Amino acid sequence: MENKPKEVARRPETAEEKMRYGKSEAILRAAAKVFARSGYFNAKVSEVAKTAGVADGTVYLYFKNKDDLLTSIFNWAMEEFIASARKEMAEAADPREKLRRFAQLHFKLFERERDIAIVFQIELRHSTKFMEQFSTTYLAEYLEILRDIIEEGQLTGIFRKQLNSKVVAKFLFGVMDEMATNWVLSHKNHSLTAMVEPVLDIFFNGVMESNA
Amino acid sequence: MENKPKEVARRPETAEEKMRYGKSEAILRAAAKVFARSGYFNAKVSEVAKTAGVADGTVYLYFKNKDDLLTSIFNWAMEEFIASARKEMAEAADPREKLRRFAQLHFKLFERERDIAIVFQIELRHSTKFMEQFSTTYLAEYLEILRDIIEEGQLTGIFRKQLNSKVVAKFLFGVMDEMATNWVLSHKNHSLTAMVEPVLDIFFNGVMESNA
Repeated sequence: MENKPKEVARRPETAEEKMRYGKSEAILRAAAKVFARSGYFNAKVSEVAKTAGVADGTVYLYFKNKDDLLTSIFNWAMEEFIASARKEMAEAADPREKLRRFAQLHFKLFERERDIAIVFQIELRHSTKFMEQFSTTYLAEYLEILRDIIEEGQLTGIFRKQLNSKVVAKFLFGVMDEMATNWVLSHKNHSLTAMVEPVLDIFFNGVMESNA
Repeated sequence: MENKPKEVARRPETAEEKMRYGKSEAILRAAAKVFARSGYFNAKVSEVAKTAGVADGTVYLYFKNKDDLLTSIFNWAMEEFIASARKEMAEAADPREKLRRFAQLHFKLFERERDIAIVFQIELRHSTKFMEQFSTTYLAEYLEILRDIIEEGQLTGIFRKQLNSKVVAKFLFGVMDEMATNWVLSHKNHSLTAMVEPVLDIFFNGVMESNA
């Protein structure tokens, strides 16, 4: 069971694992490209194989079906993001600085990987089933990181104590999510990262103690 | 061309029109119910007809196909919402009160019409094509109403003048949209309308002049 979606982003160790890991990542990148271009429903696994430069059968060695490819893109990208976020968070002291880095990391990733961004903002949301899966696994972890930072800010007296940290985390995610969807749908190619400061300006004013 | 989607929500006048109007609305409600229950992709037009209590052929008298049903649900619900919102806005003077009424109207509609809420938060977002259609028509009008209220508040000195009203409108929509999706996916049946005050508390603090 080496190829379960949850393990895709695990660091490879042996030479054989490295090869396998490289190939499964290449297939996931190809799948993201194909899903972003053709839409999940129109996409064919054979198109993914062709884009990845492998035989159709090779895709099925790693992934059960098209559904599994979509879930695996989500798990892989979220694991990578959460690992980077946790590392960055450990390097910042101020809760505001942590939120700034978190938002920048999220938006920079999307700018660097537009196919992944399209899959995240559109293709992953096509059904209640996926949305539920999405919101009860890594998205819950994403919100938990935000919540921890907000509670830290409440403890140190920067953010208003009476606010419900769970609501505040969803609030910030909602704004960032809308900015990301807007950027994906816009053909003007404006910078998504440039939205971090205007968003945080309103957000920080919204949640800060008036004397902080 | 009496049955173009854009005209679905037009008030019927003659007796014949009233009957036709009632029937097309009944079909749209049935479609929303079927899409919410089975998901757009699995839903069958024959299931919509059965739920509406009409023959399959009758659905096709009013709507071209399943795609047209989905687009028509969106157009019909948005027209109703925007008409109500414009009316409510005219009755409030303070921009904060306008935003409060707007948010309450949006969330109350979803609580009253859960099938419509599921279609809006999930089924309508399944493809770039729909998302683009969604964001360039009525959603643009929705954001414009928010933007007008924000600019009014900037003019009267309540909201910070240096904020980009377009960004502020998207900001507020993003938060409300996330709360709505969360509510749709949650099986706990908490009140969505109860989220209006916590959301606006943070939002108003975020956008208000410190001396307002």
